[in-house]
Amino acid sequence: MAAIYSSVGELVAEGVGKISFPVIAERAGVNPTTLYRRWGDVSVLLEEVAVAALTRDGESAPDTGSLEEDLTEWAIVIARDITRPKRTRYLRAMVSARVEIVSSCPVMETRREQATEMVRRADERGEATPSVPQILDHVIAPLYHHVAFALEVDDEYPRRLVRDVLAMVS
Amino acid sequence: MAAIYSSVGELVAEGVGKISFPVIAERAGVNPTTLYRRWGDVSVLLEEVAVAALTRDGESAPDTGSLEEDLTEWAIVIARDITRPKRTRYLRAMVSARVEIVSSCPVMETRREQATEMVRRADERGEATPSVPQILDHVIAPLYHHVAFALEVDDEYPRRLVRDVLAMVS
Repeated sequence: MAAIYSSVGELVAEGVGKISFPVIAERAGVNPTTLYRRWGDVSVLLEEVAVAALTRDGESAPDTGSLEEDLTEWAIVIARDITRPKRTRYLRAMVSARVEIVSSCPVMETRREQATEMVRRADERGEATPSVPQILDHVIAPLYHHVAFALEVDDEYPRRLVRDVLAMVS
Repeated sequence: MAAIYSSVGELVAEGVGKISFPVIAERAGVNPTTLYRRWGDVSVLLEEVAVAALTRDGESAPDTGSLEEDLTEWAIVIARDITRPKRTRYLRAMVSARVEIVSSCPVMETRREQATEMVRRADERGEATPSVPQILDHVIAPLYHHVAFALEVDDEYPRRLVRDVLAMVS
Protein backbone atom coordinates (compact mmCIF):
# COMPACT_ATOMS: atom_id res chain seq x y z
CA MET A 1 0.00 0.00 0.00
CA ALA A 2 2.76 2.46 0.98
CA ALA A 3 4.69 1.44 -2.17
CA ILE A 4 1.65 2.17 -4.33
CA TYR A 5 1.02 5.57 -2.72
CA SER A 6 4.64 6.63 -2.96
CA SER A 7 4.89 5.44 -6.57
CA VAL A 8 1.92 7.59 -7.50
CA GLY A 9 3.56 10.45 -5.58
CA GLU A 10 6.80 10.03 -7.53
CA LEU A 11 5.01 9.91 -10.88
CA VAL A 12 3.04 13.06 -10.04
CA ALA A 13 6.23 14.77 -8.81
CA GLU A 14 8.01 13.86 -12.05
CA GLY A 15 5.14 15.42 -13.97
CA VAL A 16 4.37 12.20 -15.87
CA GLY A 17 1.55 13.10 -18.26
CA LYS A 18 -0.37 9.88 -18.51
CA ILE A 19 -0.42 7.98 -15.22
CA SER A 20 -2.04 4.57 -15.77
CA PHE A 21 -2.40 1.40 -13.68
CA PRO A 22 0.36 -0.40 -15.66
CA VAL A 23 2.74 2.56 -15.15
CA ILE A 24 2.04 2.64 -11.39
CA ALA A 25 2.23 -1.15 -11.10
CA GLU A 26 5.64 -1.22 -12.76
CA ARG A 27 7.00 1.48 -10.46
CA ALA A 28 5.56 -0.09 -7.31
CA GLY A 29 6.53 -3.62 -8.29
CA VAL A 30 2.99 -4.97 -8.00
CA ASN A 31 0.62 -6.66 -10.40
CA PRO A 32 -1.65 -4.23 -12.33
CA THR A 33 -4.58 -6.56 -11.57
CA THR A 34 -4.22 -5.71 -7.88
CA LEU A 35 -4.72 -2.05 -8.72
CA TYR A 36 -7.68 -2.66 -11.03
CA ARG A 37 -9.33 -4.83 -8.40
CA ARG A 38 -8.94 -2.34 -5.56
CA TRP A 39 -9.50 1.02 -7.29
CA GLY A 40 -11.37 0.17 -10.51
CA ASP A 41 -10.27 3.37 -12.22
CA VAL A 42 -6.92 5.16 -12.06
CA SER A 43 -8.68 8.47 -11.31
CA VAL A 44 -9.93 7.03 -8.00
CA LEU A 45 -6.42 6.12 -6.86
CA LEU A 46 -4.99 9.41 -8.14
CA GLU A 47 -7.59 11.37 -6.22
CA GLU A 48 -7.02 9.33 -3.06
CA VAL A 49 -3.30 10.10 -3.11
CA ALA A 50 -3.88 13.76 -3.97
CA VAL A 51 -6.32 14.16 -1.08
CA ALA A 52 -3.87 12.51 1.32
CA ALA A 53 -1.16 14.90 0.13
CA LEU A 54 -3.36 18.00 0.28
CA THR A 55 -4.84 17.42 3.72
CA ARG A 56 -3.18 16.23 6.85
CA ASP A 57 -4.98 14.12 9.41
CA GLY A 58 -5.82 16.00 12.56
CA GLU A 59 -4.74 19.31 11.05
CA SER A 60 -6.63 21.80 13.18
CA ALA A 61 -7.86 25.30 12.46
CA PRO A 62 -6.06 28.26 14.11
CA ASP A 63 -7.52 29.55 17.39
CA THR A 64 -6.25 33.09 17.95
CA GLY A 65 -9.36 34.56 19.60
CA SER A 66 -10.41 36.57 16.51
CA LEU A 67 -12.11 35.25 13.37
CA GLU A 68 -10.18 37.64 11.15
CA GLU A 69 -6.86 36.43 12.50
CA ASP A 70 -7.94 32.78 12.43
CA LEU A 71 -9.05 33.00 8.80
CA THR A 72 -5.99 34.97 7.72
CA GLU A 73 -3.54 32.56 9.33
CA TRP A 74 -5.45 29.58 7.94
CA ALA A 75 -5.66 31.01 4.41
CA ILE A 76 -1.96 31.94 4.32
CA VAL A 77 -0.92 28.43 5.42
CA ILE A 78 -3.13 26.91 2.69
CA ALA A 79 -1.84 29.35 0.06
CA ARG A 80 1.80 28.61 0.92
CA ASP A 81 1.09 24.89 0.94
CA ILE A 82 -0.67 24.60 -2.42
CA THR A 83 1.86 26.86 -4.18
CA ARG A 84 4.71 24.46 -3.36
CA PRO A 85 5.52 22.85 -6.73
CA LYS A 86 4.79 19.31 -5.58
CA ARG A 87 1.41 20.26 -4.06
CA THR A 88 0.52 22.25 -7.15
CA ARG A 89 1.10 19.12 -9.22
CA TYR A 90 -1.21 17.18 -6.92
CA LEU A 91 -3.87 19.84 -7.25
CA ARG A 92 -3.58 19.67 -11.03
CA ALA A 93 -3.61 15.87 -10.91
CA MET A 94 -6.91 16.16 -9.05
CA VAL A 95 -8.34 18.35 -11.81
CA SER A 96 -7.21 15.84 -14.46
CA ALA A 97 -8.58 12.88 -12.51
CA ARG A 98 -12.10 14.31 -12.29
CA VAL A 99 -14.33 14.01 -15.29
CA GLU A 100 -17.80 13.26 -13.94
CA ILE A 101 -19.42 15.79 -11.59
CA VAL A 102 -18.53 14.89 -8.00
CA SER A 103 -21.10 15.35 -5.25
CA SER A 104 -18.38 16.45 -2.85
CA CYS A 105 -14.66 17.09 -2.94
CA PRO A 106 -12.78 15.47 -0.03
CA VAL A 107 -10.22 18.29 0.11
CA MET A 108 -13.03 20.84 0.28
CA GLU A 109 -14.75 18.79 3.01
CA THR A 110 -11.64 19.08 5.19
CA ARG A 111 -11.67 22.84 4.68
CA ARG A 112 -15.40 22.91 5.47
CA GLU A 113 -14.81 21.21 8.83
CA GLN A 114 -12.05 23.66 9.72
CA ALA A 115 -14.14 26.68 8.67
CA THR A 116 -17.11 25.36 10.67
CA GLU A 117 -14.93 25.14 13.76
CA MET A 118 -13.59 28.70 13.41
CA VAL A 119 -17.06 30.13 12.74
CA ARG A 120 -18.51 28.25 15.73
CA ARG A 121 -15.91 29.74 18.07
CA ALA A 122 -16.43 33.26 16.64
CA ASP A 123 -20.18 32.83 17.08
CA GLU A 124 -19.66 31.94 20.73
CA ARG A 125 -17.58 35.09 21.16
CA GLY A 126 -20.47 37.08 19.66
CA GLU A 127 -18.61 38.13 16.49
CA ALA A 128 -20.53 38.71 13.23
CA THR A 129 -19.55 35.83 10.95
CA PRO A 130 -19.89 34.99 7.27
CA SER A 131 -21.41 31.56 6.58
CA VAL A 132 -19.21 28.50 6.05
CA PRO A 133 -20.18 28.26 2.33
CA GLN A 134 -19.21 31.93 1.94
CA ILE A 135 -15.76 31.19 3.38
CA LEU A 136 -15.30 28.22 1.03
CA ASP A 137 -16.54 30.13 -2.03
CA HIS A 138 -14.67 33.36 -1.39
CA VAL A 139 -11.43 32.28 0.29
CA ILE A 140 -10.71 28.65 -0.64
CA ALA A 141 -12.14 28.53 -4.19
CA PRO A 142 -10.21 31.61 -5.45
CA LEU A 143 -6.97 30.23 -3.95
CA TYR A 144 -7.42 26.85 -5.66
CA HIS A 145 -8.50 28.61 -8.84
CA HIS A 146 -5.35 30.70 -8.92
CA VAL A 147 -3.09 27.72 -8.34
CA ALA A 148 -4.88 25.48 -10.88
CA PHE A 149 -4.72 28.20 -13.56
CA ALA A 150 -1.12 29.06 -12.67
CA LEU A 151 -1.80 32.63 -11.58
CA GLU A 152 0.49 34.15 -9.01
CA VAL A 153 -0.44 33.82 -5.31
CA ASP A 154 1.54 35.87 -2.78
CA ASP A 155 0.80 36.28 0.97
CA GLU A 156 -1.22 39.41 0.28
CA TYR A 157 -3.75 37.49 -1.83
CA PRO A 158 -5.21 35.31 0.98
CA ARG A 159 -5.23 38.38 3.26
CA ARG A 160 -7.29 40.27 0.71
CA LEU A 161 -9.74 37.38 0.26
CA VAL A 162 -10.31 37.21 4.03
CA ARG A 163 -10.88 40.97 4.28
CA ASP A 164 -13.42 40.68 1.44
CA VAL A 165 -15.37 37.81 3.00
CA LEU A 166 -15.53 39.64 6.33
CA ALA A 167 -16.76 42.79 4.56
CA MET A 168 -19.85 40.76 3.59
CA VAL A 169 -21.04 40.85 7.19
CA SER A 170 -19.74 44.22 8.37
CA MET B 1 -4.87 27.71 -39.73
CA ALA B 2 -8.57 26.82 -39.46
CA ALA B 3 -7.69 23.14 -39.94
CA ILE B 4 -5.18 23.31 -37.09
CA TYR B 5 -7.65 25.05 -34.75
CA SER B 6 -10.47 22.65 -35.53
CA SER B 7 -8.17 19.63 -35.18
CA VAL B 8 -7.19 20.78 -31.70
CA GLY B 9 -10.88 21.34 -30.96
CA GLU B 10 -11.75 17.81 -32.07
CA LEU B 11 -8.95 16.26 -30.00
CA VAL B 12 -10.05 18.20 -26.91
CA ALA B 13 -13.69 17.24 -27.56
CA GLU B 14 -12.72 13.57 -27.85
CA GLY B 15 -10.96 13.86 -24.50
CA VAL B 16 -7.60 12.76 -25.93
CA GLY B 17 -5.23 12.65 -22.95
CA LYS B 18 -1.92 13.59 -24.47
CA ILE B 19 -2.29 16.15 -27.25
CA SER B 20 1.08 16.63 -28.94
CA PHE B 21 2.26 18.42 -32.10
CA PRO B 22 2.58 15.13 -34.05
CA VAL B 23 -0.98 14.13 -33.05
CA ILE B 24 -2.38 17.53 -34.12
CA ALA B 25 -0.30 17.55 -37.31
CA GLU B 26 -1.62 14.15 -38.34
CA ARG B 27 -5.23 15.17 -37.74
CA ALA B 28 -4.84 18.51 -39.54
CA GLY B 29 -2.81 17.07 -42.41
CA VAL B 30 0.10 19.45 -41.90
CA ASN B 31 3.79 18.97 -41.17
CA PRO B 32 4.64 18.91 -37.40
CA THR B 33 7.55 21.25 -38.15
CA THR B 34 5.05 23.96 -39.12
CA LEU B 35 3.51 23.69 -35.66
CA TYR B 36 6.84 23.67 -33.82
CA ARG B 37 7.97 26.69 -35.78
CA ARG B 38 4.84 28.75 -35.15
CA TRP B 39 3.94 27.83 -31.53
CA GLY B 40 7.17 26.43 -30.06
CA ASP B 41 5.31 24.46 -27.39
CA VAL B 42 2.03 22.58 -27.65
CA SER B 43 0.74 24.33 -24.48
CA VAL B 44 0.86 27.67 -26.33
CA LEU B 45 -1.33 26.37 -29.16
CA LEU B 46 -3.66 24.57 -26.75
CA GLU B 47 -4.15 27.73 -24.72
CA GLU B 48 -4.74 29.81 -27.84
CA VAL B 49 -7.53 27.49 -28.97
CA ALA B 50 -9.01 27.27 -25.47
CA VAL B 51 -9.08 31.05 -25.14
CA ALA B 52 -10.75 31.39 -28.54
CA ALA B 53 -13.37 28.83 -27.48
CA LEU B 54 -13.96 30.38 -24.05
CA THR B 55 -14.29 33.99 -25.15
CA ARG B 56 -16.09 35.41 -28.11
CA ASP B 57 -14.84 38.47 -29.93
CA GLY B 58 -16.94 41.52 -29.30
CA GLU B 59 -18.95 39.76 -26.58
CA SER B 60 -20.31 42.63 -24.56
CA ALA B 61 -21.37 42.89 -20.92
CA PRO B 62 -25.11 43.16 -20.11
CA ASP B 63 -26.53 46.67 -19.69
CA THR B 64 -29.78 46.43 -17.73
CA GLY B 65 -29.51 49.65 -15.73
CA SER B 66 -28.63 47.91 -12.45
CA LEU B 67 -25.26 46.46 -11.45
CA GLU B 68 -26.90 43.58 -9.60
CA GLU B 69 -28.89 42.57 -12.66
CA ASP B 70 -25.93 43.09 -15.00
CA LEU B 71 -23.64 40.91 -12.87
CA THR B 72 -26.28 38.23 -12.34
CA GLU B 73 -27.09 37.93 -16.04
CA TRP B 74 -23.39 37.94 -16.93
CA ALA B 75 -22.47 35.30 -14.31
CA ILE B 76 -25.34 32.99 -15.31
CA VAL B 77 -24.35 33.14 -18.99
CA ILE B 78 -20.73 32.32 -18.08
CA ALA B 79 -21.79 29.50 -15.73
CA ARG B 80 -24.02 27.92 -18.39
CA ASP B 81 -21.31 28.29 -20.99
CA ILE B 82 -18.43 26.72 -19.07
CA THR B 83 -20.56 23.83 -17.80
CA ARG B 84 -21.28 22.66 -21.36
CA PRO B 85 -19.19 19.47 -21.68
CA LYS B 86 -17.06 20.74 -24.56
CA ARG B 87 -16.27 24.04 -22.82
CA THR B 88 -15.47 22.21 -19.61
CA ARG B 89 -12.92 20.15 -21.54
CA TYR B 90 -11.36 23.36 -22.88
CA LEU B 91 -11.18 24.79 -19.39
CA ARG B 92 -9.46 21.64 -18.18
CA ALA B 93 -7.16 21.67 -21.22
CA MET B 94 -6.14 25.17 -20.16
CA VAL B 95 -5.30 23.92 -16.66
CA SER B 96 -3.21 21.10 -18.14
CA ALA B 97 -1.44 23.40 -20.58
CA ARG B 98 -0.22 25.77 -17.88
CA VAL B 99 2.80 24.79 -15.86
CA GLU B 100 4.80 27.96 -15.32
CA ILE B 101 3.14 30.86 -13.49
CA VAL B 102 1.45 33.14 -16.02
CA SER B 103 1.48 36.88 -15.55
CA SER B 104 -2.03 37.12 -16.91
CA CYS B 105 -4.73 34.79 -18.14
CA PRO B 106 -6.31 35.87 -21.45
CA VAL B 107 -9.73 34.47 -20.49
CA MET B 108 -9.62 36.39 -17.21
CA GLU B 109 -8.57 39.55 -19.08
CA THR B 110 -11.74 39.36 -21.19
CA ARG B 111 -13.79 39.06 -18.00
CA ARG B 112 -11.86 41.98 -16.49
CA GLU B 113 -12.77 44.21 -19.44
CA GLN B 114 -16.44 43.28 -19.16
CA ALA B 115 -16.49 43.81 -15.38
CA THR B 116 -14.75 47.17 -15.79
CA GLU B 117 -17.44 48.28 -18.22
CA MET B 118 -20.32 47.23 -15.90
CA VAL B 119 -18.69 48.89 -12.87
CA ARG B 120 -18.01 52.07 -14.84
CA ARG B 121 -21.68 52.36 -15.82
CA ALA B 122 -22.85 51.66 -12.24
CA ASP B 123 -20.42 54.31 -10.98
CA GLU B 124 -21.93 56.84 -13.37
CA ARG B 125 -25.39 55.97 -12.04
CA GLY B 126 -24.07 56.60 -8.51
CA GLU B 127 -24.40 52.99 -7.32
CA ALA B 128 -22.01 51.61 -4.68
CA THR B 129 -19.79 49.14 -6.50
CA PRO B 130 -17.31 46.43 -5.56
CA SER B 131 -13.93 46.73 -7.27
CA VAL B 132 -13.18 44.88 -10.51
CA PRO B 133 -10.65 42.55 -8.78
CA GLN B 134 -13.35 41.73 -6.20
CA ILE B 135 -15.75 40.72 -8.99
CA LEU B 136 -13.09 38.52 -10.62
CA ASP B 137 -12.02 36.92 -7.32
CA HIS B 138 -15.49 36.34 -5.93
CA VAL B 139 -17.67 35.65 -8.98
CA ILE B 140 -15.45 34.39 -11.80
CA ALA B 141 -12.78 32.48 -9.82
CA PRO B 142 -15.30 30.36 -7.82
CA LEU B 143 -17.21 29.52 -11.03
CA TYR B 144 -14.03 28.39 -12.82
CA HIS B 145 -12.92 26.58 -9.67
CA HIS B 146 -16.17 24.61 -9.49
CA VAL B 147 -16.02 23.62 -13.14
CA ALA B 148 -12.32 22.67 -13.06
CA PHE B 149 -12.81 20.53 -9.94
CA ALA B 150 -16.04 19.01 -11.32
CA LEU B 151 -18.31 20.38 -8.61
CA GLU B 152 -21.92 21.03 -9.50
CA VAL B 153 -22.87 24.50 -10.78
CA ASP B 154 -26.58 25.34 -11.10
CA ASP B 155 -28.15 28.75 -11.88
CA GLU B 156 -28.46 29.52 -8.17
CA TYR B 157 -24.69 29.38 -7.67
CA PRO B 158 -23.77 32.45 -9.80
CA ARG B 159 -26.74 34.32 -8.27
CA ARG B 160 -25.39 33.63 -4.79
CA LEU B 161 -21.86 34.72 -5.73
CA VAL B 162 -23.17 38.01 -7.09
CA ARG B 163 -25.24 38.66 -3.94
CA ASP B 164 -22.12 38.00 -1.86
CA VAL B 165 -19.87 40.35 -3.81
CA LEU B 166 -22.49 43.10 -3.60
CA ALA B 167 -22.79 42.54 0.16
CA MET B 168 -19.14 43.64 0.41
CA VAL B 169 -20.16 47.22 -0.38
CA SER B 170 -23.59 47.42 1.20
